[in-house]
Amino acid sequence: MHRGTLVLLRHGQSTWNLDNRFTGWTDVDLTPQGEQEAASAGGLLVQEGVRFDVVHTSLLRRAIRTAHLALEATDQLWLPVERHWRLNERHYGALQGMNKKELSERYGADQVFAWRRSYATPPPALELGDERHPASDPRYQGLAPEVLPATECLQDVVERVLPYWQDHVAPLLLAGRSVLVVAHGNSLRAILKHLEGVSDDDIADINIPTGVPRLYRFDSHLRPTEVRYLGDAAAVAAKAAAVAREAGGH
Amino acid sequence: MHRGTLVLLRHGQSTWNLDNRFTGWTDVDLTPQGEQEAASAGGLLVQEGVRFDVVHTSLLRRAIRTAHLALEATDQLWLPVERHWRLNERHYGALQGMNKKELSERYGADQVFAWRRSYATPPPALELGDERHPASDPRYQGLAPEVLPATECLQDVVERVLPYWQDHVAPLLLAGRSVLVVAHGNSLRAILKHLEGVSDDDIADINIPTGVPRLYRFDSHLRPTEVRYLGDAAAVAAKAAAVAREAGGH
Repeated sequence: MHRGTLVLLRHGQSTWNLDNRFTGWTDVDLTPQGEQEAASAGGLLVQEGVRFDVVHTSLLRRAIRTAHLALEATDQLWLPVERHWRLNERHYGALQGMNKKELSERYGADQVFAWRRSYATPPPALELGDERHPASDPRYQGLAPEVLPATECLQDVVERVLPYWQDHVAPLLLAGRSVLVVAHGNSLRAILKHLEGVSDDDIADINIPTGVPRLYRFDSHLRPTEVRYLGDAAAVAAKAAAVAREAGGH
Repeated sequence: MHRGTLVLLRHGQSTWNLDNRFTGWTDVDLTPQGEQEAASAGGLLVQEGVRFDVVHTSLLRRAIRTAHLALEATDQLWLPVERHWRLNERHYGALQGMNKKELSERYGADQVFAWRRSYATPPPALELGDERHPASDPRYQGLAPEVLPATECLQDVVERVLPYWQDHVAPLLLAGRSVLVVAHGNSLRAILKHLEGVSDDDIADINIPTGVPRLYRFDSHLRPTEVRYLGDAAAVAAKAAAVAREAGGH
């Protein structure tokens, strides 16, 4: 039986990527460059001839708008779309809104790198009453309070993304459907880690560039038989390196 | 129990509204004016303080983009959205793509008005092999062939819209949810006719303006207790009159 195709797409540059601030669940918009990246991603999908059956996004506008702009470019705006909090970016806790450079000056670059890339240690948590806490946001009102994070490390993200992957994405791929997932640096790293069997240590060094579709094809056990970024390899590598270099990008 | 709020929103001006051509299921885009109308509709929803739980659109980009632009203006891009062919515009059969003025000159204004507004007589049907037939369009490949229209009168639209209304919208309203439906002149006239008990004859004279939210509140039997357009009444009336005056607008 023919298995489906998966494409992971990280949203284009956001206003806080540009400002070098920890974003997390903060609902910032795309920059004009980010809009362009989204449309270009659509162009790469057209070039590759990938057609989708369904699209998944987070609840954050930078992913939703990236999906919209990419699908517009592929003439597939009409596709069914599911939006889910489990695809949201990692919650950065009390760091959300803070400038990464200022934090580096104050706490040292090592500490900031640890907050960004430590697999199992989350940044300082938000208080429940903090306006940055998801409990204050109408879009999360319908959720069980215990799922709303006050901070997250990547391990937390893996744990909350995998149930969505298992229930909403994997069955479609096994049934031969093609699926586009438009989400965030860390929610996509969680999926990548799972699919490609990356260790807890090695995942720190993997950086997903904004606006570059990552394509997977699978065998009948949903093991990847083909994994690659679409588009020019050198340009993709340069973008991933830029993500690693800034103390930022997610 | 508190019943939900319904808002019906017709997409903003499309390129073929502007060209005065029969559009139907042709997937034309919004004009810049149409984009502005969509954003203004969002502004009216904010002013009114309406918040939604879910959004429904057709499979046509002028409705999908109107929903997107209106929701962007209300900061509710994250809402769950269902897209369905049953909310599509009336299929205009062999008239799709034709200029209304040229058809009037050839067949007489009475005939064109009858094609536009006759409740029970559809325009000439498309051949199955015609590229304008929905069977040629990938977005309808998953549907039972018998539901794909080769032409439709308003009665046909009522018959295909009501099952969607009954199964996907009415239960939400009865459960107290607020629902936004972004669709087309005729699919919305079908819902309006049903909700407001308009006769087969009288529906011909009812014109829904583009980009103006129509708000309904209900009693426990889902009978409307409040029905009105949001925004300035004189401006709304002028827009509806313009729809009636052109031999067009849908």
